[in-house]
Amino acid sequence: MNTFGQLFRVTTFGESHGPAIGCVIDGCPPGIAIAPEEFRHDLDRRATGKTRHTSARHEADEVEILSGVYEGRTTGTPIALLVRNTDARSKDYDKIAAQFRPGHADYTYWQKFGHRDPRGGGRSSARETTMRVAAAVIAKKWLLEKSGVRVRGHLAQIGEVVPQAHDWNTLDWSVVEANPFFWPDATQVVELENYMDALRKSGDSVGARVTVVADGVPPGWGEPVYGKLDAELAAAMMSINAVKGVEIGDGFASIAQRGTLHRDEMTRDGFQSNHAGGILGGISTGQQVVCSVAFKPTSSLRLPARGMDVEGNEVDIVTTGRHDPCVGIRATPICEAMLALVLMDQALRHRGQCADVGEVSPRVPGSIRVGGP
Amino acid sequence: MNTFGQLFRVTTFGESHGPAIGCVIDGCPPGIAIAPEEFRHDLDRRATGKTRHTSARHEADEVEILSGVYEGRTTGTPIALLVRNTDARSKDYDKIAAQFRPGHADYTYWQKFGHRDPRGGGRSSARETTMRVAAAVIAKKWLLEKSGVRVRGHLAQIGEVVPQAHDWNTLDWSVVEANPFFWPDATQVVELENYMDALRKSGDSVGARVTVVADGVPPGWGEPVYGKLDAELAAAMMSINAVKGVEIGDGFASIAQRGTLHRDEMTRDGFQSNHAGGILGGISTGQQVVCSVAFKPTSSLRLPARGMDVEGNEVDIVTTGRHDPCVGIRATPICEAMLALVLMDQALRHRGQCADVGEVSPRVPGSIRVGGP
Amino acid sequence: MNTFGQLFRVTTFGESHGPAIGCVIDGCPPGIAIAPEEFRHDLDRRATGKTRHTSARHEADEVEILSGVYEGRTTGTPIALLVRNTDARSKDYDKIAAQFRPGHADYTYWQKFGHRDPRGGGRSSARETTMRVAAAVIAKKWLLEKSGVRVRGHLAQIGEVVPQAHDWNTLDWSVVEANPFFWPDATQVVELENYMDALRKSGDSVGARVTVVADGVPPGWGEPVYGKLDAELAAAMMSINAVKGVEIGDGFASIAQRGTLHRDEMTRDGFQSNHAGGILGGISTGQQVVCSVAFKPTSSLRLPARGMDVEGNEVDIVTTGRHDPCVGIRATPICEAMLALVLMDQALRHRGQCADVGEVSPRVPGSIRVGGP
Amino acid sequence: MNTFGQLFRVTTFGESHGPAIGCVIDGCPPGIAIAPEEFRHDLDRRATGKTRHTSARHEADEVEILSGVYEGRTTGTPIALLVRNTDARSKDYDKIAAQFRPGHADYTYWQKFGHRDPRGGGRSSARETTMRVAAAVIAKKWLLEKSGVRVRGHLAQIGEVVPQAHDWNTLDWSVVEANPFFWPDATQVVELENYMDALRKSGDSVGARVTVVADGVPPGWGEPVYGKLDAELAAAMMSINAVKGVEIGDGFASIAQRGTLHRDEMTRDGFQSNHAGGILGGISTGQQVVCSVAFKPTSSLRLPARGMDVEGNEVDIVTTGRHDPCVGIRATPICEAMLALVLMDQALRHRGQCADVGEVSPRVPGSIRVGGP
Repeated sequence: MNTFGQLFRVTTFGESHGPAIGCVIDGCPPGIAIAPEEFRHDLDRRATGKTRHTSARHEADEVEILSGVYEGRTTGTPIALLVRNTDARSKDYDKIAAQFRPGHADYTYWQKFGHRDPRGGGRSSARETTMRVAAAVIAKKWLLEKSGVRVRGHLAQIGEVVPQAHDWNTLDWSVVEANPFFWPDATQVVELENYMDALRKSGDSVGARVTVVADGVPPGWGEPVYGKLDAELAAAMMSINAVKGVEIGDGFASIAQRGTLHRDEMTRDGFQSNHAGGILGGISTGQQVVCSVAFKPTSSLRLPARGMDVEGNEVDIVTTGRHDPCVGIRATPICEAMLALVLMDQALRHRGQCADVGEVSPRVPGSIRVGGP
Repeated sequence: MNTFGQLFRVTTFGESHGPAIGCVIDGCPPGIAIAPEEFRHDLDRRATGKTRHTSARHEADEVEILSGVYEGRTTGTPIALLVRNTDARSKDYDKIAAQFRPGHADYTYWQKFGHRDPRGGGRSSARETTMRVAAAVIAKKWLLEKSGVRVRGHLAQIGEVVPQAHDWNTLDWSVVEANPFFWPDATQVVELENYMDALRKSGDSVGARVTVVADGVPPGWGEPVYGKLDAELAAAMMSINAVKGVEIGDGFASIAQRGTLHRDEMTRDGFQSNHAGGILGGISTGQQVVCSVAFKPTSSLRLPARGMDVEGNEVDIVTTGRHDPCVGIRATPICEAMLALVLMDQALRHRGQCADVGEVSPRVPGSIRVGGP
Repeated sequence: MNTFGQLFRVTTFGESHGPAIGCVIDGCPPGIAIAPEEFRHDLDRRATGKTRHTSARHEADEVEILSGVYEGRTTGTPIALLVRNTDARSKDYDKIAAQFRPGHADYTYWQKFGHRDPRGGGRSSARETTMRVAAAVIAKKWLLEKSGVRVRGHLAQIGEVVPQAHDWNTLDWSVVEANPFFWPDATQVVELENYMDALRKSGDSVGARVTVVADGVPPGWGEPVYGKLDAELAAAMMSINAVKGVEIGDGFASIAQRGTLHRDEMTRDGFQSNHAGGILGGISTGQQVVCSVAFKPTSSLRLPARGMDVEGNEVDIVTTGRHDPCVGIRATPICEAMLALVLMDQALRHRGQCADVGEVSPRVPGSIRVGGP
Repeated sequence: MNTFGQLFRVTTFGESHGPAIGCVIDGCPPGIAIAPEEFRHDLDRRATGKTRHTSARHEADEVEILSGVYEGRTTGTPIALLVRNTDARSKDYDKIAAQFRPGHADYTYWQKFGHRDPRGGGRSSARETTMRVAAAVIAKKWLLEKSGVRVRGHLAQIGEVVPQAHDWNTLDWSVVEANPFFWPDATQVVELENYMDALRKSGDSVGARVTVVADGVPPGWGEPVYGKLDAELAAAMMSINAVKGVEIGDGFASIAQRGTLHRDEMTRDGFQSNHAGGILGGISTGQQVVCSVAFKPTSSLRLPARGMDVEGNEVDIVTTGRHDPCVGIRATPICEAMLALVLMDQALRHRGQCADVGEVSPRVPGSIRVGGP
């Protein structure tokens, strides 16, 4: 199951230290203008090696379009994208090829498949997410041009650090893009720099929270029951490496809320709040879609841990490869990508089934975001 | 998309106040002994009308097996289960047929489909989950008999109330089944009764947290990338009505953890902790699989809310039908059902692809559950 | 795999002599007017017991709509249809429950599943096709109303008997519907009556050819490579009981044709021929879609055959139940149904992916049907 | 829909004259030994440019394995195969970029997508089938090693020429592989050489029939109703370019047969015939699986045809590119590939659902092939 989506289907392949990674995008609408350089922006946002706060691995991530695009526009046939791996230092991993790193997929792949590619985590490496970001570049473009949908994300927690209280409805996205942490509050960036420096020196790691939002989603996207928009978002986010939790709207905070608070009242002026995160009954309301994602701290540390080897011996595991002290930082464009892929697929499915349905008036105006990240 | 699963596929149908609800289970292994009365136990656990803390609707929920079972055993062909609706008081809803209840799917279904069944919420009613529970009875049985996998759940929060601190590894499941709240701590039941009585009198509602666990899952179930065991669990849980968040293992608490804490060390004596919730790289580790789910407070209240009608007028919405003040309470068997359906499907998929792989030794013993709910 | 289709998905269930058969139609566009009595016409065309030339089993085939239709129109949620079995004489089959009838699925089901429902062939009975016909009633209606597509079929061979030579472009469909053989040539009906009477007396059976055509299919339906319109038609037809061959357009006759003959030339006046059967590269051309299907002679005969029983003994098999001497006769509405289901699904998929594509002019007029059945 | 299969899933991409073609094989069992040079044999059998009877295009077809194989064995993760296009003379096609070649997908792609890659037929070119053959190399290997299943094919008709009558049960496969026509009768090869030379000189083309068989398929592969083994074979074959018909076993000849002849009797010595082609009720019987496929004559001819251009003008179409006078000749390995892919997928699905079912004795011996091609 390396394919995501029903109508807009993305199949990824490739291992961290194999010759290449890539994807095939099937079911893409024809006629979308796309050039190789358009992948650059989001791949750079996701890339390692840009600041001292991420892994030192530096990949050029040059995207080659192998098919599905003719004279600069999609043809409706499968779009294959290829990225050669160039900075794969497999020797870094040789010594732990026969060991199971705690907190990694080494042990589970070995139990499942009996034979695995241990180099850089092989298929279980976050390098795979490069191709999700690449595929989503096309989805983001189509969503914006066809439906005015804009997908964006920011960090909302690093370790214990949370953004200063502010009004989420007036979030300044240029701030998010102007610092290496996708952080929404410019006044905290120095604090975070220091926090991360101290963490890196300690040899330890922390988790993070990423919040992604989609503005402009029309009401009606999503499907009842198992194809709910939020169900597919949950799967999409949880399929990202290191994710341990997903929330829609108020998420776990809803537990202690009262119904009189949580239910988003509607007036002629629009929705009065957005505790639901823009989705009711699995279908978009027309408000901002809000999804928040928990990333665990990476387990790849130079601080030793007790582990096992393939022969059943206890060993001390020390990871000396290049790793992120907080994998969640670079995850913002990945979460955006998954949100875009889900929306794109649901948009196509919606018009497949329901294109006959004209716009049903009146439409309740909406896009009030409430609550924290 | 009213079908769940790849090999063990469950398709549900039916509206809250239509003639019947039902499901078709396709891809079921042949030879499983199953009798109509075996559905009784879990359907009763899920049913309304048993205590004053749930909706007063009383449905007999008699399951008729229409196909796929011959002489008491499954034949490998589709199993159709049918439950007639008997206590559907549609008149309760007539007056709001032209209104959009805040916090409900009324508005989104109307925008998507242009035509909807408003009676009792129609397809968006939690009544649909009856058939998930029924289908999972077969899955639970197969999982236990073939693989020794046991799926169970309990409430872990109602509103602000959480279980008293205790050792989750010594959870007494008989306590959970002995009170109407699926609550793991017998000493708190009176408190909860009072809490719910006060809530019901107030006319308001609260959310809840359900935690489900699977013991005995062997290492190796789940698939890399998009078919990850945790990704499918996330979708499965988020597809349940009123769910706003899903966690695997430590979930959102992982954000503030350090990697040295979170990574579960392995020794010859087994895993030393289970922050991961029994899943690494999307594949089961052999430890207890732990998943926690947030339910929002129901929006159906007798306290009025501002809403809209189909003609664009502002109206006061008052819900006088029968509703649960805390929908999460009855959700425990539903969450168990979704966990069982995901595991069953992954088990079949695993042996489809990897049956050639013998048991890969050594296997790290495991099942330590750590942390709170 | 008891589900057919990608967006318009039909899941059938039920055994020949079980309590009921039924289907769930998922992904249906909302707003289609449908009433229970609309299923009557095509179910009657398919039904046994109408003339002496088909099985004597008489089923009322009363369709109950269990869900997905509200106030007479589809809601976009799953439509469940149920038909109770009323004339199931299982005693007819008791004596061969432990035997494998030659030419039947008895042996293969037993090898695959280890446990089977032998009554009337269980799941492998053609009774399952009742629900395909029922589901297709909705598809046919939508296709005609939305796109002007009309799906029809006729017999084109019974045993050695073929229609008299005539111009297929002037086929009179009222003739087809006016005789019990769906035969396009009224002058041959007496001959066929005599032929079938003699066959029935002999105790033997023959095969048949059914040809189905769709008029009005716009160019552009179908998908490249594996989702080709003709590939899905081939699977759809071959999934019908007793089918052994499928042709599109000229089919096997193409082998001995020259390319200069076969390629359908285009002029401003339209396609000059239709050897292709209305499909090129897996996508409809705008011409009549033509598909021809071979049915084998039924193996259920009162003339004894050598067979085996479940204990490995050789036995003489004599079938005394009620059977059709030519199963192909009643297959015409079934083949129509599968054609309609494929077209409906492809239509929805096409607008899902390509709704952005306006009508691309110029369109070559076309609907010339050439060649024999 | 450029993906084939449910568990063993092959996704292909690439255009005839684009930079590359390739495929991703997902769901492959782990541990299969595979080396790049193992693709050579079947790709050579399929390749053009080997004899004067096929297109002069010469492609090296060097397969690069990009992922999913580590230390020479499959890992269970997606296997990506890449073949660069090297002999793409797009200038051959420039002059007809704005024209619709009769009998080709030019017109239908243009109507569907509005934008197409005209170079060499783009995605609709038979060049795509290269990757089917490559993917099937792995399937063939696994089928043979795990289950003793051997997949082979031969031509059974070219234009009007059919093999001399002989006993199909004693077919000498070394003869098939020793002539450029995959022809089963060595005595006719000179005749065919002359036939093809005359055809090529005439500028015209003819169709062909390919028959593929699988020996050693155990009983039980295939699924009831829509996932029937024969239904999936029909779709698989019909998805190949230029195919117009598919038969299982006796196929269309069954129409005029009597049931007493067609039904394959069973005795303790085994099946007494194989009119069914090794499949009953959609499930394999244990006999030889026999499938026959009709290829139309290619429409790409230097003899002019009347056609249209994109502006609606009538034009004379002359194809001067390199083309096969009989595309069916090289189709033998392609049909074999599709048979292998279907069997592989069904084998995995069967053990997913039914691995619990032990071998059900007694098994009727079988592999008698009857009748002509």
